[in-house]
Amino acid sequence: MADAPEDMVESVLPTRWNREFEKVADALCPQLHKWTRTPQRVIKFDKDDSQYFGLRAVPADFPIDQLASKTWGRGDDIILDFGVHMVGFLSLRLESRGAHIDAPCRLRLTFGESPLDVTLGMDGVQTWIGTGWLPDEVVNVDMCPELVSVRRRHSFRYLRVQVVDTSPKYKVALADVRCECVSAVGQSHALDAPRFHGDLLTAIDRVSVATLRDCMQTVFEDGPRRDRRLWSGDLRLQALANYSTFKDYALVKRCIYQFAAVVREDGSLPACIFEHPRLTPSTDYIVDYDALFAAITNDYVAASGDVAAGRELWPTVLGCVRRALGHLDPATHAYDEKLGEGWNFLDWQPGLEHSAGEHGVLLYSLKAANALAGTIGEEPPFTDLLARMTEAAGRFLSSEGVFVSGPEAQVSYASAAWLVLAEAFPRETARAALLKTLARPDALRPLTPYLWHHVCDALATVGCFDECVDIVKDYWGGMVRAGADTFWECYDPKDPRASPYGDVRNNSFCHAWSCTPAYLLRGKLRDHVGVEGTGSATMGELDEDWIRTQVAP
Amino acid sequence: MADAPEDMVESVLPTRWNREFEKVADALCPQLHKWTRTPQRVIKFDKDDSQYFGLRAVPADFPIDQLASKTWGRGDDIILDFGVHMVGFLSLRLESRGAHIDAPCRLRLTFGESPLDVTLGMDGVQTWIGTGWLPDEVVNVDMCPELVSVRRRHSFRYLRVQVVDTSPKYKVALADVRCECVSAVGQSHALDAPRFHGDLLTAIDRVSVATLRDCMQTVFEDGPRRDRRLWSGDLRLQALANYSTFKDYALVKRCIYQFAAVVREDGSLPACIFEHPRLTPSTDYIVDYDALFAAITNDYVAASGDVAAGRELWPTVLGCVRRALGHLDPATHAYDEKLGEGWNFLDWQPGLEHSAGEHGVLLYSLKAANALAGTIGEEPPFTDLLARMTEAAGRFLSSEGVFVSGPEAQVSYASAAWLVLAEAFPRETARAALLKTLARPDALRPLTPYLWHHVCDALATVGCFDECVDIVKDYWGGMVRAGADTFWECYDPKDPRASPYGDVRNNSFCHAWSCTPAYLLRGKLRDHVGVEGTGSATMGELDEDWIRTQVAP
Repeated sequence: MADAPEDMVESVLPTRWNREFEKVADALCPQLHKWTRTPQRVIKFDKDDSQYFGLRAVPADFPIDQLASKTWGRGDDIILDFGVHMVGFLSLRLESRGAHIDAPCRLRLTFGESPLDVTLGMDGVQTWIGTGWLPDEVVNVDMCPELVSVRRRHSFRYLRVQVVDTSPKYKVALADVRCECVSAVGQSHALDAPRFHGDLLTAIDRVSVATLRDCMQTVFEDGPRRDRRLWSGDLRLQALANYSTFKDYALVKRCIYQFAAVVREDGSLPACIFEHPRLTPSTDYIVDYDALFAAITNDYVAASGDVAAGRELWPTVLGCVRRALGHLDPATHAYDEKLGEGWNFLDWQPGLEHSAGEHGVLLYSLKAANALAGTIGEEPPFTDLLARMTEAAGRFLSSEGVFVSGPEAQVSYASAAWLVLAEAFPRETARAALLKTLARPDALRPLTPYLWHHVCDALATVGCFDECVDIVKDYWGGMVRAGADTFWECYDPKDPRASPYGDVRNNSFCHAWSCTPAYLLRGKLRDHVGVEGTGSATMGELDEDWIRTQVAP
Repeated sequence: MADAPEDMVESVLPTRWNREFEKVADALCPQLHKWTRTPQRVIKFDKDDSQYFGLRAVPADFPIDQLASKTWGRGDDIILDFGVHMVGFLSLRLESRGAHIDAPCRLRLTFGESPLDVTLGMDGVQTWIGTGWLPDEVVNVDMCPELVSVRRRHSFRYLRVQVVDTSPKYKVALADVRCECVSAVGQSHALDAPRFHGDLLTAIDRVSVATLRDCMQTVFEDGPRRDRRLWSGDLRLQALANYSTFKDYALVKRCIYQFAAVVREDGSLPACIFEHPRLTPSTDYIVDYDALFAAITNDYVAASGDVAAGRELWPTVLGCVRRALGHLDPATHAYDEKLGEGWNFLDWQPGLEHSAGEHGVLLYSLKAANALAGTIGEEPPFTDLLARMTEAAGRFLSSEGVFVSGPEAQVSYASAAWLVLAEAFPRETARAALLKTLARPDALRPLTPYLWHHVCDALATVGCFDECVDIVKDYWGGMVRAGADTFWECYDPKDPRASPYGDVRNNSFCHAWSCTPAYLLRGKLRDHVGVEGTGSATMGELDEDWIRTQVAP
């Protein structure tokens, strides 16, 4: 997720703090693991129209262990390639060569997740979200040698070092360049490392795992570059991928309790939370994210077996669907985006009509709440309502057998995915409607990996495995072919500079809501795609394997 | 002084380290005094063609104590006026106002010694010296409140804060803005504070004192903004001004011993020294600066009474004139800039012929060495040579009674000033030649305050007090009228953007070699200009007085 547009922000409802839940969350704060990575090679990017970004990495003519012996002066421009995406703190020892450092050295450091970050420059970015996110730093060094330690945490694979100036009397050398990487997942963490049929699927799985790992800090961040914080919609997908990989139940529990600690006075949950300087709810509110808290909690209890938490969170779960229920037409029990309050999201696609999709989300969430009730020994509270809403779902099925939404009978992937996931129809009906939607050229397609995930999950749910794998290979595989080390916030196969914010340089290239292929491949798709090798590996081993494939001589 | 042009740098001679002298220098390293200053007002600069810089400070419509209650967002641009020039470390507490800081805040801080620094911006500076000197910093803040502490020491009166970005959800406030000022001279240091006839001369004296104070750090720096280091030519003038004001003999001794510790194998002294990371001679060499070390040492011993140091430094003094002696024509004993090795400086004025002026410098230096010999009980070694050089000086006096230099018989202020200061001629001859030079429209004029000082000192030496005071009032007074808090590295009354480096934004506006009016006014000019009030004041009191005159309501 990311910042909501200004006009989507509603007035702030008072928070009903639950300090006991906050204490539970605080006690679960992980001690971050730390490890050091060093650059693997010096590169430049040459133009190459056959590449997605139009750029091809060309290694320098010297090995990386000679870096500290090279000297650089005014105007020099160096790109270091660490070979793998990292989140951490950069340091280097700046040394001077020549007569003496007789004027300060000014460096501009740009931390690149993509080749564009380190080739376009960061000047003149036009974007409606804060340009303070841009990953460049200007460093002034009065005297050498000096240990330059960048205080901000950065998220990057490439480091561009622009020597703005030295002086005619000296040049500088870059020694001991390193990144102290951080994550809640350490390098020694072992996980299943299936080898799928076909290298592409295995690579997609690895990139998913790396994406998830780099987003796992003291909370599940949406993106370690931007916005670096916990959004509930992203959390749900991260938690699912995490159950298939790292199985870090404590971090999920911490995040769930953080949300539960800041429920608003009407029982609704904020879409997003700030961890610093102290736990604070964001003013952002999203109806579908709110309702899905029921699913997040039910998933967590089912995966972890932590039934006690389910009991403790039960009142919160009952509250989280209330705002969505306010969107139901009292006469028909059909969701209407024009009723009730709050931002209906589902996807960033402009013009999306949300009613059908949100009907699916709410059904899905109420079923999760009922399931949780069963687990914790409560009477399932939504049984009658589910029956009525299931019946009402029929209003969204057109006579042609596709799902439609709103007065214009809009056909969209969003409506189809969520009505399928909600299992509102017999499997064959749902399957046919979903496939017809995907076959229609006029159907409104997803813009975000978040909705693409739900399309894939829906396909797998109704047994359309081939169609699901095709999308995984095409969409997430497209990012891998384009050079992704981690999956992106947004991906337009036709436009490498597409951005929801007006400028690709403010995009995040390691984004939680695109980490789900590992969940699908290791779950619903596993038997279908075929696993050629099993076994486990540590994250350190997986990283080293990745680096080898990236910087092979 | 400042960086030498590249082609003036000669190959490095090996250093003959004197570690005992280095120890003496180390032991004299001052503990810097520290005090805090806060901004006095928020201002903007309006166009005003009646002002030297074309700008007039206009106070904001709120008092400074309301600063922390004001909020600032993307594109806001604030100038804080501290009311006095300072050298130190800036800090402020950045606070956020609004919903929550949901994107980093990026600030650009520009430290201004002049109104141009904080209005022109620091982009696109074209200069042949390092742009790393430019006094701007880019600060990225992820979370508020945060104490922003700028690590570099800056030299400034104005602080421009440009809010590059916040986000639509929050703005920032600037709280606890302060500068921790540093100098070898503390706020409680008391010194004579004469009130001269006419406010202008008193102001000129105060600005001289402030200039000197801000250059006095762990060495006498040439300029606390640029180059922040010890040049021997500047040291000589600073020491003279210091004997008339702060009387900090220890800091002078430290600097003298630093030079004496790094004499080169031929006995010559580097023009400049680096203090960090360890004491190191610069590769810069200037013949006149080298020879004048004799005068620096003699002045120090005379002012401090430290005869033991004079004895210890005697071999160094004998060495320092040797390279200059190599420029004497063996047949005539006249200085010829084309003989011998090394850069002849005197002034930055292009096209200057140095022979006559350097003849004066060498005579002056040899006389100082002979005087020192007398003080320490050595046989004066240069008596015969002085007689020959005094006779040879006649070659530089034209039949018209002006001093000329080189094959083109160039008439310059430099030649006249130094031949007068060397007392190479009878007083009336010297006086007439100096006044004739000043009266000639074709005479090559000074470019730097360094040479203007020597012109003034020469005028005072031959009793031309009115002419001397006129220059002081016109030249240094011109800077005061233009708004100087400290005297500048270079001042062109006709061009506020003049720079020896191609761009005024790389000029230093607090520069040691322009601090000498205090020496002249409190010395040779004192009886002539008339002192209307005596008494002493602390530096803190003088600063507060200054601030009152600058930011009066």
